[in-house]
Amino acid sequence: MKAAKTIVSFDEIRALAKALPAADDVAAEVARDRQAQLTKPAGSLGRLEEVAVWLAAWQGRNPPSVERPYAAVFAGNHGIAEKGVSAYPAAVTAQMVRNFIDGGAAVNQLCSLANADLRVYEMALNEPTADFSEAAAMDEENCAKAMAYGMMAVESGIDVLALGEMGIANTTAAAALCCGLYGGPAADWVGPGTGIDAERMAEKARLVDQAVALHRDALGDPLEVMRRLGGRELAAIAGAILAARMARTPVLLDGYACTAAAAVIHALVPGAIDHCMVSHVSAEPGHKRLLQRIGKEALVDLGMRLGEASGAMVAVLLLKAAVACHNGMATFAEAGVSGPGEDS
Amino acid sequence: MKAAKTIVSFDEIRALAKALPAADDVAAEVARDRQAQLTKPAGSLGRLEEVAVWLAAWQGRNPPSVERPYAAVFAGNHGIAEKGVSAYPAAVTAQMVRNFIDGGAAVNQLCSLANADLRVYEMALNEPTADFSEAAAMDEENCAKAMAYGMMAVESGIDVLALGEMGIANTTAAAALCCGLYGGPAADWVGPGTGIDAERMAEKARLVDQAVALHRDALGDPLEVMRRLGGRELAAIAGAILAARMARTPVLLDGYACTAAAAVIHALVPGAIDHCMVSHVSAEPGHKRLLQRIGKEALVDLGMRLGEASGAMVAVLLLKAAVACHNGMATFAEAGVSGPGEDS
Repeated sequence: MKAAKTIVSFDEIRALAKALPAADDVAAEVARDRQAQLTKPAGSLGRLEEVAVWLAAWQGRNPPSVERPYAAVFAGNHGIAEKGVSAYPAAVTAQMVRNFIDGGAAVNQLCSLANADLRVYEMALNEPTADFSEAAAMDEENCAKAMAYGMMAVESGIDVLALGEMGIANTTAAAALCCGLYGGPAADWVGPGTGIDAERMAEKARLVDQAVALHRDALGDPLEVMRRLGGRELAAIAGAILAARMARTPVLLDGYACTAAAAVIHALVPGAIDHCMVSHVSAEPGHKRLLQRIGKEALVDLGMRLGEASGAMVAVLLLKAAVACHNGMATFAEAGVSGPGEDS
Repeated sequence: MKAAKTIVSFDEIRALAKALPAADDVAAEVARDRQAQLTKPAGSLGRLEEVAVWLAAWQGRNPPSVERPYAAVFAGNHGIAEKGVSAYPAAVTAQMVRNFIDGGAAVNQLCSLANADLRVYEMALNEPTADFSEAAAMDEENCAKAMAYGMMAVESGIDVLALGEMGIANTTAAAALCCGLYGGPAADWVGPGTGIDAERMAEKARLVDQAVALHRDALGDPLEVMRRLGGRELAAIAGAILAARMARTPVLLDGYACTAAAAVIHALVPGAIDHCMVSHVSAEPGHKRLLQRIGKEALVDLGMRLGEASGAMVAVLLLKAAVACHNGMATFAEAGVSGPGEDS
């Protein structure tokens, strides 16, 4: 893999996306075999069984592990925030980064509970991207570099990578990405975000419609969708997804904004996000629609809509549960428990 | 409260159920106030916020805690098992109790992960209850004593009680309880349990219909429903729910069989299970219908159907997440983060 720090163009990203490794089918099969022998009716741990097999497949080993999960939260600012699309002022992005560093945010408590490393990546918060309702958010070099920056966040030896974002107005960017990738009226993709009223939401939708119309001729290329309608933190998430795939590191996507960034990679190469699981269904209404588009079912639906990898870190707890059962349970033979239909 | 160990009649249980304490509204209000000040958009932690307030309300204090959750798993055997309603032989109940003691079951791994105490209560496994398709499962004294036994499992100082069961054929008993309480054809309440085929499932439904018809004149009394159609482990769960309420200990219900036991208490006094949260939606199809009847929404839906408090212990992890955020996050004032609409 080309050193991420040298990447400055979309052609380099496209070349990477064409050479992605597959899952380890052997490890997956070994994990499935083990599941069939554990002291429980077949399938009775539901999605926890699927999770264990998925982790084995992407970690390339059985038993899989979730010993030291890693959360990467990317923060960026958006020109569109000046149009009043969020309930909060843009300065909150930097204030929340400070809160992450000081340990006061939700994701800090969740990382602490899950024994996870948390890294926060602040991306030029004083230089918001351009307002995409009037111009492209970024030029190609800046967008490619933001993706490369995300790639560099993926160290070796991570057993699970939880991705998240912080960026005032980035549910507007997420809606613009979805609208750019999948079409439809912006109203299908826009929601209340941090909590705006119906009037402001209508204006948010109008701005997204305007942005998509402005950039419509370029939207056949997913990377152009990211460059024109995305943002730095979203590009970084897309890059981190690619780098995680190169390293065969399983990824937990967080909510709407994070999944919208993943959708750009999915549009580029559909199988390129097979190593990603969606943690939760966001209360942001576009998320459900987006999950249908990328063909993924979230693990849980807790009505969360905070971002900052909080949903992904909740899902890490479920991954730990899945692995604890998978790795620690006795088999029917070990425990002397009769199988179905056996005489006792 | 009358010492549980002296209880031998339904009148004593009814007297208890009429004198249940309410939640602590003051603690709930303090918890809600705190939630509103934490560094996140209001409501953005979704059900994790609800969970934190619910725990404060029933623990009677803010901050709430989930330091040392407690899982109680009751095991019983059922005469109806002789009719071949399960994929597994009845001997598996005792074999699985041995597996719990040896630490090899799913619930052991989940308790270990959650730092929870696990207690397994074996209830006369060599003396199955009577086959309820032919006679009442228990007499009043035995049923009342099984409930009292469940009450005694609730020690003081438990911050959260996760309830579960083990009993070959007890999804048949659960379906019979639901059918007895709510009516309808047994087919509405019967499912594949540990994994039976359609033919055996039809026979399972036929037996439940037969049982409900046999006992129909007594089904106006929820305790009679338990005595005639339930089982020892299900009666014990019902008793534990009452005792937890007396102690204002919040309870996590597990899947279908556990919730069916709770439904008997709900039918006795609808508010008597307000301190109970349903952990997960079981893959056993009757569970969703039952949740509608008791007016509860499960926390997660992971397609689990194992019992033994496994779903409840997964939910304990989410309670820990809720409490970690609630207790550990900084407020807007502490973190210097601007609120909605504020200038920065």
